[in-house]
Amino acid sequence: MTDAARPPRAQPEPRAAFSVFRTLPTRWMDNDLYGHINNAAYYSFFDTAVNAYLIGAGALDIQSGSVIGLVIENHCNYFASLAFPEDVEAGLRVGHIGRSSVRYELGLFAPGASHSAASGHFIHVYVDRETRRPTELPAALQQALLALKVPA
Amino acid sequence: MTDAARPPRAQPEPRAAFSVFRTLPTRWMDNDLYGHINNAAYYSFFDTAVNAYLIGAGALDIQSGSVIGLVIENHCNYFASLAFPEDVEAGLRVGHIGRSSVRYELGLFAPGASHSAASGHFIHVYVDRETRRPTELPAALQQALLALKVPA
Amino acid sequence: MTDAARPPRAQPEPRAAFSVFRTLPTRWMDNDLYGHINNAAYYSFFDTAVNAYLIGAGALDIQSGSVIGLVIENHCNYFASLAFPEDVEAGLRVGHIGRSSVRYELGLFAPGASHSAASGHFIHVYVDRETRRPTELPAALQQALLALKVPA
Amino acid sequence: MTDAARPPRAQPEPRAAFSVFRTLPTRWMDNDLYGHINNAAYYSFFDTAVNAYLIGAGALDIQSGSVIGLVIENHCNYFASLAFPEDVEAGLRVGHIGRSSVRYELGLFAPGASHSAASGHFIHVYVDRETRRPTELPAALQQALLALKVPA
Repeated sequence: MTDAARPPRAQPEPRAAFSVFRTLPTRWMDNDLYGHINNAAYYSFFDTAVNAYLIGAGALDIQSGSVIGLVIENHCNYFASLAFPEDVEAGLRVGHIGRSSVRYELGLFAPGASHSAASGHFIHVYVDRETRRPTELPAALQQALLALKVPA
Repeated sequence: MTDAARPPRAQPEPRAAFSVFRTLPTRWMDNDLYGHINNAAYYSFFDTAVNAYLIGAGALDIQSGSVIGLVIENHCNYFASLAFPEDVEAGLRVGHIGRSSVRYELGLFAPGASHSAASGHFIHVYVDRETRRPTELPAALQQALLALKVPA
Repeated sequence: MTDAARPPRAQPEPRAAFSVFRTLPTRWMDNDLYGHINNAAYYSFFDTAVNAYLIGAGALDIQSGSVIGLVIENHCNYFASLAFPEDVEAGLRVGHIGRSSVRYELGLFAPGASHSAASGHFIHVYVDRETRRPTELPAALQQALLALKVPA
Repeated sequence: MTDAARPPRAQPEPRAAFSVFRTLPTRWMDNDLYGHINNAAYYSFFDTAVNAYLIGAGALDIQSGSVIGLVIENHCNYFASLAFPEDVEAGLRVGHIGRSSVRYELGLFAPGASHSAASGHFIHVYVDRETRRPTELPAALQQALLALKVPA
C-alpha cells in the first residue's frame, strides 16, 4: 500500500518488548457505536497502567504527594480491534528518563495474544503540585522507573 | 531545555492554522483529580469535532452508512491546561487525503485564546461497515474533506 | 401493561416543569454499541448542568471553595432515546432545599421536544472540602438555589 | 438527622444480599476533582457487571443477538467514597423478573468491606434489536436471571 497518510513504521510489538503487565478489564461503555473500544479509552488505559504501577511501587501519591505527573504528549497506533467484554492486557516500559520528564511506552494486548493490538507512548513532566513547575524526579520515582527499562 | 524526552517541534498554533471551528462545552467529569481536563477527553473532543463536521456536511452516516472511519493513529501535544466549566474551541483542518485514509489535524483553544492549548492529529481509514476492509473515500466525503484544507 | 418491574408513575415532563435550561452538546463516544447515548452519560449531563449553573451564579468554586457538593443519591427514568450528534437540552429545577442538602430535578430534552426524553434527580450534600462533614448551605448557594424553584 | 432531602431508608447492604460478585478495577480518570470516583462511573460499573455476567452465562450476545436490553430506570445511593486505584467489588442480584423486563440490584464494595459503599438498581427492558419493541425474555436469559435470585 502506498497510501501516504499511513505512517510507515508503527508495528505490533511482542510481549517481550514490555517489562510489566497489568490486566485491565473493559467496560460496557468502552465499546462505541462501531462495536469496539473507542480510541479515547485507550488513553485511559495508558493513564491507569502507569499511575497504578507508580502507586503500587510507592513512587506516587496522587491524593497528597508534592509532585504530580502531567501529560505533555501522547500517541497511539491501532493495529487490531479490542472490545468489551474481553480484558485488555497492558504492557509497560520506560523509554527515556529525563531530569523532570519520562517517556512511557505501552502496548495493549488481547488476552493471550502474542503481539499488541495497539502501541503508544506518553510523556509525563513531573511538576510541583502547587506551582505546577517542573521539578526533578524524586528518588523513589527514579527507582520505580528504572525497573521499567527493557534491556536493549 | 535539553531534556531529550521532550519532542523539539510541537508548538501552539494560531487560529488561522485551522479551517473550521466548533465549540465543545466541557463536563464536570472531564476534570480529573489534578483539576484540569484529563488527556483522554481530548481525544473524545477530536472524535466529536470530526464526526460532527462530517455528519453536518452530509458526508457520513454513523448509524447506517456503508462506510465508516476507523482510527489507526492519533497523537496530541499539550501546551496549557483546559478545565471545566470553560468551553473548548476545536479547530479542524485536513492534512492529507489518501485513497482510503485521511489525516485530520486539530487544535483545542481556550475561549478567545490566540493559540492552541493542545494540538494533535488522527488518521482515519475508511472501511466497509460489514467487511471492515479499506474502501475508497466516497465522493461526498472527499468533497467535505477538501473544504477542510488550509491554503499553504 | 401489568409488568410489575416497571415503575407506575414516572412520566415525560413538559418544559414548563423546569426553571433554567442549558444546551449540552453530545459527543461521539456518548453513543454506545446500541446507537444511543449510554445511561451513565446522562448522569454526567446532570452533574454538568448543576455545577455549571452554580459556578455561573457565583455560588460554587470547584477548585478552591471551602464547601463542595457530594452526591448521595441519584435516579433517572428514560422515556426515549437521545443520540449523538444531536444536542441535549437540560432543564433544571430545585425540588427541596434542606439545611445542608439539596434535591435537584432534571429533564433532558431532544432539541425542540415538548417533553423530556429522560427525567431524574440527584441529591447533593454540601460538605466542608477538608473534613468532608456536612455544612450549612452558604448564603450565596441558598440564593442561587431559590432561583431554581418552580412555582407550584 | 431530620434533613428531609435525604431519603430515610437506603442503607449499606451486607455481601450476603448479593448472589454473584465481580471485581471491577478502577481507572485514573474515574476520580474526579474531589478525589473520589464520579457518580456517573458507578452506573458504568452497574452496566458492566450485568452485561459481563449475562455474556459469560451465554444469555446475551451484544454484537449480534436479536434481543438487547435497554435501561428504562436506574438509581443509586452513595454511603461512602470509593477511589482509584482501589478495585471495586460489585455484587449483583435480581429483584424482579417480568415478562420483558428485569430489575437488577447492585452493591459496590471497597475491597474486603463488609457493607456496600453504594447500592442501586437498574431496570432493563428487553427489546428486539431492530424494532426496539419489548419482547419476552428469551429462555437462556430467564435461566441466567433465576441464578441471580437471592433467597429471602
